[in-house]
Amino acid sequence: MTVPLEKVSEAARVAEPGEGISVDELRLASRNHAMPMEMLREDVTPVGLHYVLAHYDLPAVDRDTWTLAIGGCVRTPVTVGFEELTSMPARTVRVTLECAGNGRATLSPRPVSQPWLNGAVGTADWTGVPLNDLLERAAPTDDAVDVVFAGADHGFERGVEQDYERGLSMADATSGDLLVAYAMNGEPLPVQHGYPVRLVVPGWYGMAHVKWLQTVTVIDGPFEGYQNKAYRLRQQADEVGVPVTRMEPRALLMPPGHPDFMTRDRIARPGPVTLRGRAWSGWAPVERVEVSTDDGTTWTDARLEADAGRWAWREFSAAWDALPGEHRLRVRAHDAGGRVQGDVPAWSRGGFANNGDQPVTLYVLDE
Amino acid sequence: MTVPLEKVSEAARVAEPGEGISVDELRLASRNHAMPMEMLREDVTPVGLHYVLAHYDLPAVDRDTWTLAIGGCVRTPVTVGFEELTSMPARTVRVTLECAGNGRATLSPRPVSQPWLNGAVGTADWTGVPLNDLLERAAPTDDAVDVVFAGADHGFERGVEQDYERGLSMADATSGDLLVAYAMNGEPLPVQHGYPVRLVVPGWYGMAHVKWLQTVTVIDGPFEGYQNKAYRLRQQADEVGVPVTRMEPRALLMPPGHPDFMTRDRIARPGPVTLRGRAWSGWAPVERVEVSTDDGTTWTDARLEADAGRWAWREFSAAWDALPGEHRLRVRAHDAGGRVQGDVPAWSRGGFANNGDQPVTLYVLDE
Repeated sequence: MTVPLEKVSEAARVAEPGEGISVDELRLASRNHAMPMEMLREDVTPVGLHYVLAHYDLPAVDRDTWTLAIGGCVRTPVTVGFEELTSMPARTVRVTLECAGNGRATLSPRPVSQPWLNGAVGTADWTGVPLNDLLERAAPTDDAVDVVFAGADHGFERGVEQDYERGLSMADATSGDLLVAYAMNGEPLPVQHGYPVRLVVPGWYGMAHVKWLQTVTVIDGPFEGYQNKAYRLRQQADEVGVPVTRMEPRALLMPPGHPDFMTRDRIARPGPVTLRGRAWSGWAPVERVEVSTDDGTTWTDARLEADAGRWAWREFSAAWDALPGEHRLRVRAHDAGGRVQGDVPAWSRGGFANNGDQPVTLYVLDE
Repeated sequence: MTVPLEKVSEAARVAEPGEGISVDELRLASRNHAMPMEMLREDVTPVGLHYVLAHYDLPAVDRDTWTLAIGGCVRTPVTVGFEELTSMPARTVRVTLECAGNGRATLSPRPVSQPWLNGAVGTADWTGVPLNDLLERAAPTDDAVDVVFAGADHGFERGVEQDYERGLSMADATSGDLLVAYAMNGEPLPVQHGYPVRLVVPGWYGMAHVKWLQTVTVIDGPFEGYQNKAYRLRQQADEVGVPVTRMEPRALLMPPGHPDFMTRDRIARPGPVTLRGRAWSGWAPVERVEVSTDDGTTWTDARLEADAGRWAWREFSAAWDALPGEHRLRVRAHDAGGRVQGDVPAWSRGGFANNGDQPVTLYVLDE
């Protein structure tokens, strides 16, 4: 019996009006998890609570036989094993990492894919070897245009069988910020974050941070692999679209009070509340965060806490006197490049880079 | 303005026919995650991939000021700090732990709560002090009936404000199997698994394994707190119901082949395949696992691998020659007590203890 692959692996689609979350989407949501919002209390997201998105199965890679091969348009192809990699000069960088599809399930109409609400983010201290140090050893030739990073994860997507592969331009790949990382918060990478080695591209959405990294290939033209075509902003399926790259500014509020189990709405008692959260932008430092306690009718500036480094989120806080009633809390970030978080999520067919805000409903009881 | 609590924290309900997963359910699914099925390859579930369910926010507990108070109907109330607890004789036990609601979202009609598919399970090595050693120091009085375990997690549920609390009978609490655990796989507990200390009740569904444990209170009557009333098997909302206790037998198959990103269906090429998985029961040891590759029309016995201890899942395997076409794979477990996994999930309003099976759709390509 012949199985047509397109029966199994269908084209992308947008949900019908009023269509509830499908079982396909739920299957993705049950394996790829968000950061619980109360973890905004932590500078560094604890192990197992950083958001995770893997397109395919988490591969089992043996660190002792693992190698990273750097080849293609280079003068000296280089292959390093784990021991050699970890003996090279290393750097540790605190990086906030967000999925390009964060907020997708809040869009209308809803792109049918991993149904993120707002929590597809996390911050970790990544330790690794600067990618430039490895590329310099390989010495790209003058015709180098793009660099392709391939992971060990393998699957099917919209009819295409593939290892997960992403390309970056030579300029982006050699910015000096990229790490070939082998530790997360001082420990070996958890399997779901790319054990034993992944790429970290500070400031970029997660799709560029290739996990289970195995090969780095310099090519003499633009990379036209599946993932570089998929992660684009499009209004229609047949558009070429605009590549998704750096993280748009976004602020998240640590929800005050206590949750209701089912609705996850928040309940508190009257009195002073410190509204706290974190904000980030991959384009420029966060320079302002506003807070609204009346669903965006009025806004006040939050206080920004100490800068935690260019690639880490920045904590903010604002004092508020919570009176009995129902409140709708919102926050929005501005970066130094003039980008402002939109309070209506920008829509695209993939649901990417929509930096809509995260309204928090808080009920303050009478006493 | 007065907010009626029942507006925020509603009664439990069952989904309408054809009703998609709601945003409320998705909010739960985005924070409480399942074990990815490929992790059935591991004896012990890696950190961050064991299933997690927390009813409320993950509390921030300071280990240096944390205490466990054992009181109520005891001759000698006992309070221990973390240092004292970890200096007592300890035991390490490998325990498979499953959420009572595992499989809930596969039921029809669907109980509206955490929408688990099949992966709300995991196995860990838990290290801790036998609960009996602590109870013996406190010396329960002769009128002791139940023991109540309370965590630091606080929230609202179906209109009731509460710390998470669960009661066990004195007989169940003093079985000798229970641990007051402070390490998971040799490391301090991750915050989402109860840091710094949780209860482990081998063989029981997760609702009994109270996380962020703070007090153990012996009482002279049956515990009638919220959670002991909630975790019951009922067909109608107004029934008293039957308490949910030990895990029913269940087998899970590690899906062969590679996934499609969106449908999570599996795709493979023709040839020999080893079907592998794990099975467990809280009632009695697993003594048989059957495998079907034709959607349950015919079944063959899988080979059982070595027993990994009374409370750990047991690995099984079966050889199969995969021919081109669409296949529906199923597995089912039998335990030594005569319990057999049902292939139609047992329905209850809470969706608890339904040990329905997990059909895996596999497409084998022509080559």
